[in-house]
Amino acid sequence: MGLCQRWRRLRIPGLQACGLHTAAVPTPPHWLVERLGLFEQLWTAQVKRLASLAQKEHRTIKISLPGGQKVDAVAWNTTPYQLAQQISSKLADTAVAAQVNGEPYDLERPLETDSDLRFLTFDSAEGKAVFWHSSTHVLGAAAEQLLGAVLCQGPSTGCGFYHDFFLGKERTIKGSELPVLERICQELAAAAQPFRRLEASQDQLRQLFKDNPFKLHLIEEKVTGPTATVYGCGMLVDLCRGPHLRHTGQIGGLKLLSNSSSLWRFSGTPETLQRVSGISFPTAEELRAWEEWREEAELRDHRRIGKEQELFFFHELSPGSCFFLPRGTRVYNVLVAFIRAEYTRRGFSEVKTPTLFSTKLWELSGHWEHYREDMFALQPPDSDSHAGSQSDHSTSHPTGTLALKPMNCPAHCLMFAHRPRSWRELPLRLADFGALHRAEASGSLGGLTRLRRFQQDDAHIFCAPDQLEAEIRGCLDFLRSVYTVLGFSFRLALSTRPSGFLGEPCLWDQAEQVLQQALEEFGEPWDLNPGDGAFYGPKIDVHLRDALGRPHQCGTIQLDFQLPLRFDLQYKGQAGALERPVLIHRAVLGSVERMLGVLAESCGGKWPLWLSPFQVVVIPVGTEQEEYAREAQRSLQAAGLVGDLDADSGLTLGRRIRRAQLAHYNFQFVVGQKEQSKRTVNIRTRDNRRLGEWDLAEAVQRLLELQNTRVPNAEEIF
Amino acid sequence: MGLCQRWRRLRIPGLQACGLHTAAVPTPPHWLVERLGLFEQLWTAQVKRLASLAQKEHRTIKISLPGGQKVDAVAWNTTPYQLAQQISSKLADTAVAAQVNGEPYDLERPLETDSDLRFLTFDSAEGKAVFWHSSTHVLGAAAEQLLGAVLCQGPSTGCGFYHDFFLGKERTIKGSELPVLERICQELAAAAQPFRRLEASQDQLRQLFKDNPFKLHLIEEKVTGPTATVYGCGMLVDLCRGPHLRHTGQIGGLKLLSNSSSLWRFSGTPETLQRVSGISFPTAEELRAWEEWREEAELRDHRRIGKEQELFFFHELSPGSCFFLPRGTRVYNVLVAFIRAEYTRRGFSEVKTPTLFSTKLWELSGHWEHYREDMFALQPPDSDSHAGSQSDHSTSHPTGTLALKPMNCPAHCLMFAHRPRSWRELPLRLADFGALHRAEASGSLGGLTRLRRFQQDDAHIFCAPDQLEAEIRGCLDFLRSVYTVLGFSFRLALSTRPSGFLGEPCLWDQAEQVLQQALEEFGEPWDLNPGDGAFYGPKIDVHLRDALGRPHQCGTIQLDFQLPLRFDLQYKGQAGALERPVLIHRAVLGSVERMLGVLAESCGGKWPLWLSPFQVVVIPVGTEQEEYAREAQRSLQAAGLVGDLDADSGLTLGRRIRRAQLAHYNFQFVVGQKEQSKRTVNIRTRDNRRLGEWDLAEAVQRLLELQNTRVPNAEEIF
Repeated sequence: MGLCQRWRRLRIPGLQACGLHTAAVPTPPHWLVERLGLFEQLWTAQVKRLASLAQKEHRTIKISLPGGQKVDAVAWNTTPYQLAQQISSKLADTAVAAQVNGEPYDLERPLETDSDLRFLTFDSAEGKAVFWHSSTHVLGAAAEQLLGAVLCQGPSTGCGFYHDFFLGKERTIKGSELPVLERICQELAAAAQPFRRLEASQDQLRQLFKDNPFKLHLIEEKVTGPTATVYGCGMLVDLCRGPHLRHTGQIGGLKLLSNSSSLWRFSGTPETLQRVSGISFPTAEELRAWEEWREEAELRDHRRIGKEQELFFFHELSPGSCFFLPRGTRVYNVLVAFIRAEYTRRGFSEVKTPTLFSTKLWELSGHWEHYREDMFALQPPDSDSHAGSQSDHSTSHPTGTLALKPMNCPAHCLMFAHRPRSWRELPLRLADFGALHRAEASGSLGGLTRLRRFQQDDAHIFCAPDQLEAEIRGCLDFLRSVYTVLGFSFRLALSTRPSGFLGEPCLWDQAEQVLQQALEEFGEPWDLNPGDGAFYGPKIDVHLRDALGRPHQCGTIQLDFQLPLRFDLQYKGQAGALERPVLIHRAVLGSVERMLGVLAESCGGKWPLWLSPFQVVVIPVGTEQEEYAREAQRSLQAAGLVGDLDADSGLTLGRRIRRAQLAHYNFQFVVGQKEQSKRTVNIRTRDNRRLGEWDLAEAVQRLLELQNTRVPNAEEIF
Repeated sequence: MGLCQRWRRLRIPGLQACGLHTAAVPTPPHWLVERLGLFEQLWTAQVKRLASLAQKEHRTIKISLPGGQKVDAVAWNTTPYQLAQQISSKLADTAVAAQVNGEPYDLERPLETDSDLRFLTFDSAEGKAVFWHSSTHVLGAAAEQLLGAVLCQGPSTGCGFYHDFFLGKERTIKGSELPVLERICQELAAAAQPFRRLEASQDQLRQLFKDNPFKLHLIEEKVTGPTATVYGCGMLVDLCRGPHLRHTGQIGGLKLLSNSSSLWRFSGTPETLQRVSGISFPTAEELRAWEEWREEAELRDHRRIGKEQELFFFHELSPGSCFFLPRGTRVYNVLVAFIRAEYTRRGFSEVKTPTLFSTKLWELSGHWEHYREDMFALQPPDSDSHAGSQSDHSTSHPTGTLALKPMNCPAHCLMFAHRPRSWRELPLRLADFGALHRAEASGSLGGLTRLRRFQQDDAHIFCAPDQLEAEIRGCLDFLRSVYTVLGFSFRLALSTRPSGFLGEPCLWDQAEQVLQQALEEFGEPWDLNPGDGAFYGPKIDVHLRDALGRPHQCGTIQLDFQLPLRFDLQYKGQAGALERPVLIHRAVLGSVERMLGVLAESCGGKWPLWLSPFQVVVIPVGTEQEEYAREAQRSLQAAGLVGDLDADSGLTLGRRIRRAQLAHYNFQFVVGQKEQSKRTVNIRTRDNRRLGEWDLAEAVQRLLELQNTRVPNAEEIF
């Protein structure tokens, strides 16, 4: 489909040249022409207004630049872009937006008062957000042109952007349409259309978007002040807070990735929208590099590794619940044993709690009110329906609704409360690997990343307020030591009270201070997310970074002032009076299932020895050594190591070694006649390093040492 | 309530003396008098008939006695009792019934043909069954007299007897009525009423029990031949297969234990009956000994130990599901780790399977048809009810009924079937500790014995038919080695095909032969239970005996020919054709929860070191040694041992040692000034044996050894 066919879906007769410098395109629809006309009119007025304002005032303002330098500028006239050019042309080229007194700001928007000026580039998360947000405007413009889309919303995400739009009740976007849409996006980017920021009144906004019910709804709901901003970019006019790139030409590489449907829930009845997702970069080279990275990531997809290595599978008879095969169960159990060992070292007590609870428990905990839709609830079998059964002395069956636990905390609160507690017992650290069930939508399920059934390395610490800081420090240390062993770097963020927080402000003050203090002392960098805490308490979010540099949120440390109140938890304090404990929710791995997936991708299936479901394969040179090979295998297995055997005499030795290395066996024990007679093994690593001949018993012992110390590079330091 | 008040509930006017030699009692009701009259009439006729038969035939028959001796007897005249007297008066006194050609037989019933004669005493399980069954007739007679009960059924159980009877819609039996009922039972026993066996035609039976709807129903349903037996005993006439004691005087001690309600489900609408349970013995001394044993058992009740030792608790918000506290979880995890270690040694592969499955799975496995009422089923949350939620891209929620798994086998069948299998992979032994849920009636729940949620050391072996015998031998060896470590003796029984078995008879022949062969080779005694197998395959039942000699059924080995068919399981055989594997269900501990309860009772809370949640307590002599005591505690904990600290300076050293011994700490480490300076500990056992001064590190090492070898007597061999 060529450019000349755009707009055809709208069935507007007559073609004429439009402003785009590429080729003749069909006439845009009347509402677009009207909107664009109105925008141009308002824009001209705004340009005049600003110019006269600048001239009338002619005020010099002080701008403090990134290096600390201060320069003079003209109010309502000098732009951040001009100042960037003064600093360096490279900065001017690579800056994607400015920050003026901490607020995001368009590079071409004149400065108004004395300001502290910073520049955002694509390298920072904020810079990427501006870049991808600008890219989604390009996608929106393309969808308007090619598909006659009625645009809804187009945000940036952590890894790209998407745009939601409406194509009519019946029409959906097909995967086969993405290449054309992508080409138009690339052309619009190449056209280097400037982003023009217009401040418009509510009336003007309603006028501009009178043909778009979604935007009208957003104006109604979101625009609270007298004015809001609208951006024009080529033929697109969109309601938007900004800021944006200076022009679309800064987008050097853009790729559309997927299409799906989504639901617009703003108004009464949900409306099905079409969603197209993509990613973009300042240069084509960066896009290419990303594509290579993505290919590598796909090779490392844990679902692929799970299948290839026979770690786990899924079955339609239990969607969202994973079946762990023997090798996957081994990795799973090793992870759990690792955390258990840490629990022993760190004074955590493992407990086991039920799976099914009366909904009365969930009412008490608040889950029934807030989380009910995501819980599996059931009516127990009724005794009346039992009339025909053989059992002749059943008296009654359980009654009242039950629900599968989605979290362990309420069960741990019952455990705390099941008998009177004393200050001597605190801090009480209860850990639980119990299976949790959450009724995730089937569309949101994906591999081990989102499941309906999973287990967490979940623990709840009940402590006195003055123990809080030491406990938080302990939790942070726990996190660091586990992530270090797993080979992850991580980043911490403190989220403080949100607007609707529950509880005493002084309690929050104190707790936030304690968390901050603990973070400071911990010594790792951390970010502050003001207002991002849960309503029941502040928290420390933990984002780990895997070997591919991708972020995952796994661990968490959350304070909870509400559950101790709801369960009326108390302990007898040192002075004899009853006191209320503070509750800390914490997890390090998070969901064991998800962590297993993250680890599989992070190591690309080449597991470190201690986690590996492919530790050693024994390979006899000839059939005469098969019995000795079996003996070596038994020695490994007796030591609790994974010892497999490849005695396939149909393959040469070389082929079997190659096969073992492709299967990522950490070590191969090759045994020939010499080894058999000397009771030794000839060892190779999966990277085909030859470690030479070792006494069998000593080799097993060395492997055990390397396994038990959980080293990441057993093959190198064997 | 005195004897003279009996029958009052029936409101029959007029009292007169009856045959009982104790005291004047009220007139029995007319239906009883009628029934008794008819019985006496039929009895007289039978006595005459037999006498004339004996006289007419005057046939000599050969009787082979227990020792191998053969004696002559007169057909229709000589009784087993007479022959017992010829052997020894002790045998005649202690025999409770005879076995004639393998069939149970009344001692006073004349022999009819050449026979192989054995005698049953109270010492055997069969003898106890006759004894307790006879006792329940006494209970029935007492209930008729005292309460005007309409009798239903009264069987013996594994540990006594009970009788179910009807007292009218409104009336229930109260615990306070048991002592009077018990006194009447004792009086009836003392009266030494003979049991008289009468053969009656169906018409006569209906005539005898025309006033008892329950018996009429039983006659209708169960009496298939032209005649059936009725027994008279004092004023009681009851439909019964027999045999019984010679007379009630053989019951030297009888005790009623409990009352409850039960349901009669024979006819259309269930009827609530009253149940009284009791136990009886040949002598009063034996009853007294049993009562002492029971007191001991109650002291050892696992619910009591669980509470005292803070192992676990139950909560009304999750009835039938246990909360394991830290110490209980430790025992639980040690048991699981023990089985895991055996799995590694024995080539079992642990897997993890989901908890919730579509009912389509249960339809496939047959559970939905046969077991549905005992399963927790649920409808997943509906996507329509989600319209108001925040999530804007949920597509749909799970649909179709789901149910919590009550067993692991179907999940393991899915795992076997998830990809093609080869003979090289067999035997495939999949083990799973997954939580199982069964909707047990709340009335049947009790401690850890019967739960709604539990985990099993469940494994399923998929093997080729020719691997069956080796696998069964492996299972038997697994059982023996675990039970030996746990300190249990056990008894095996082979249950063969029942009347309604499914599958090919030749397959059954072969399998039963294989099981028998494996049992023979195993070398432990075993019993044959013909016809007691499951409909899907023969099985080996395992009854272990705990330290108090009580039997528990925990382990099982069951063959299954049906599931491989239902799931169409196949593997590629050595010849290339597809073949069907045989499935073995097996468990050693059975429910881990229940085994934990059995172990708690068996050791009476004095856990062997390796399982113990109270391994060591460190006791500093004075406050100056507290820091060193903590260090010793940390050494223990770092080694993964349970190390507690009793530094309560408010108690003397002696009191703290006593407290530790009462709490059953296997070892106490006392540390004074000398120990501190020499870095040693002074060790005592829970039986107050003094092991003297040990180097701290060496003591920890020795404990680890004793723990890891799972010895039962670490205190003795330290």
